[in-house]
Amino acid sequence: MTPAEALRSELLRGIRDNLRDGASALARRALDALAAYAEAPEGPLDVRKAELLAFAEALATVRPSLIAINNLVSRWRDAVRDFEGAPEALGPYARAQAQAVRTWADGAKDATVRATLSQLDGAGRVLTHSISSTVLEVLKRLPRTEVVVTESRPGREGWELAATLAAEGIAVRYITDAQAGLFVAEVDAVIVGADALLGDGTLVNKAGTYLLALAAQDQGKPFYVCAESFKCTTLTAEAFPLEERSGSELGPPPVPGLRARNITFEMTPPRLITAWLSNEALGPRFTRAGA
Amino acid sequence: MTPAEALRSELLRGIRDNLRDGASALARRALDALAAYAEAPEGPLDVRKAELLAFAEALATVRPSLIAINNLVSRWRDAVRDFEGAPEALGPYARAQAQAVRTWADGAKDATVRATLSQLDGAGRVLTHSISSTVLEVLKRLPRTEVVVTESRPGREGWELAATLAAEGIAVRYITDAQAGLFVAEVDAVIVGADALLGDGTLVNKAGTYLLALAAQDQGKPFYVCAESFKCTTLTAEAFPLEERSGSELGPPPVPGLRARNITFEMTPPRLITAWLSNEALGPRFTRAGA
Repeated sequence: MTPAEALRSELLRGIRDNLRDGASALARRALDALAAYAEAPEGPLDVRKAELLAFAEALATVRPSLIAINNLVSRWRDAVRDFEGAPEALGPYARAQAQAVRTWADGAKDATVRATLSQLDGAGRVLTHSISSTVLEVLKRLPRTEVVVTESRPGREGWELAATLAAEGIAVRYITDAQAGLFVAEVDAVIVGADALLGDGTLVNKAGTYLLALAAQDQGKPFYVCAESFKCTTLTAEAFPLEERSGSELGPPPVPGLRARNITFEMTPPRLITAWLSNEALGPRFTRAGA
Repeated sequence: MTPAEALRSELLRGIRDNLRDGASALARRALDALAAYAEAPEGPLDVRKAELLAFAEALATVRPSLIAINNLVSRWRDAVRDFEGAPEALGPYARAQAQAVRTWADGAKDATVRATLSQLDGAGRVLTHSISSTVLEVLKRLPRTEVVVTESRPGREGWELAATLAAEGIAVRYITDAQAGLFVAEVDAVIVGADALLGDGTLVNKAGTYLLALAAQDQGKPFYVCAESFKCTTLTAEAFPLEERSGSELGPPPVPGLRARNITFEMTPPRLITAWLSNEALGPRFTRAGA
C-alpha cells in the first residue's frame, strides 16, 4: 500500500466507524478529509484529478444514509472537476475548495440555529434524541433550559451529548430510550436533528425518533426538526438506503437461532412533524397539512 | 440479628433486587418466601401470627408497583389471619396456604395462556417487550413463530428472554428498545404482560410499553395485554406508585448538573389496547370503546 492509499483508508475509516457525530459534523469531517488528501496524488493533472474524484466518491458513499456527506462532497467535486490549471496547483486548489465548502456549511448551520432559537422562544424544557451538532448549538444558546437526553443505544451518542451539555452548565436529565414517552410529558418541546430529509418532508434520523414523534403527537407537544438544507435529498423513502450495522454492537446472547438487528436509522413521516427549521425554505412539502 | 430476622431480610432482598422476573413470577417467589419463612417464628400463637403477618406486609410493599405480589400475598394473609389452632400448627398451615395460593395462581396463568393462544390464532410473528412468565409460556406454545424481543434497558430482561426462547428452538430477533417502531412493521401482533391493570383498563408495564402501543396503533397492528386477573387493582393512575430505581443503573456520565432518571414502569391508556387476555372477565371497562 502506498502512503497515499494508506492515508485514504485511514480517512475513510474515520468517517465509517464514527458513531459519535451527527450527519453535519461527519459531513464537515469528510471535507476535512478531502483537504487532508488534496495534495497526496502525484503525476499528470488527469491522474491527480481522477484520484481525488475517486476518493470523493468513496467518501460520499461510505455512509449512504448520511445525505449531508454526499451533498457537501458534491459541491467540492463540481469545483474540482472543472479545474484546468497546472498539475501542482490542483492540490492547493482542492484544499481551498474543501475549506470554502466548509465555510458555507458553517454559515448554513448558524442560520439554522438562529431559525430554531426563534421558533423555540420561551421553551424551558426540551427533549432530544441522538446527537446533532446543530441541535447542540441550539441547546447551548437556549436561556435557562433543562434538557432531557436519551442514551441512544447502541452507540450511546446521548452519553456524549449529556456530558457536553452538563459541562456547559446546563441542567441535564439522562434517560433510557424506553423512558422517552414518560419524559415527553415533562417537556415543552421535542427537538431532533436530521440525517436526511426526503422530498416529501419525511425525516431520516436515528432509530427511536419515530417513537418520540408519536409520543409528542399523542401528548400534544411540538416536534421540531432542526436541519441545514444540505440534508435534503430527492430520493424517495423506497429508494433510500437505511444503514444497518453489526448486531454484535448490542451484545446479544450468543446462542443459535438468535439474530440481533441493528438498523441505525428510521423514517418519521411528515404528518408527525410540527416544523422543519432550516437555513432556507426547504420547499412546498415542508409545511404541515392544515398549518 | 436473629436467624429468623436474617432469613426475612434475605427473602425480602431476593424480591426487591430481582429485575429479571416479571410480576407473576415475582408474586410466586413471594409465596415461596412465605412458605420458607412460615415455620421460623416461635412462641405463643399471637406472636407467631403477628410475625408472619408483618413479613407478609413487608413482602406486599417491597415492590409497590407490582400489584400481583400484594394480591397473592393478601389471599394468603386472609387465611392465616383466621387460623385458630395450636401454635405449633400455624407454621405448617401457613406453608400449606402459600402452596395453595401458588397452585391457584398457576391455574390462572394456564387459563390466561390458553385465552391468549386462542386470540393469537394464526399470528406468525410477534413482538414483545420486557419479560413476563405468562407471555413466555404463550410464545413457547405458539406454532411456527418468530419473536422480536427488545433488550429492555437498563435491566435487559429481554436478553434473558431472548436466550430462553432461542434455547427452545424459536427464531428470535433481538433489537434495541429504540428499534421497536421499525420492527412493529414486521410483525402480526404486539403482545406484552402486565405489572398491574388499573380499574379503567390502563396497563402498568415496563417503560417503553407506551411507545410500543403507539407504534402498533399507528401501523394498524393489534396490541394485546396478557395478564392474570390477580394483576388488577382498584388504584387510580394518580394514586398508583410508579417505582423509580437508581439512575446509576444507566451508567451515566459522572458530571455535576446531570441527573440520570430510571423510572421502571409506565402507564399505557386503554385506548391503545386491542384486547386484555386473562383467565376471567376483568370487568366492563376492559373492552375497547367501539369494539
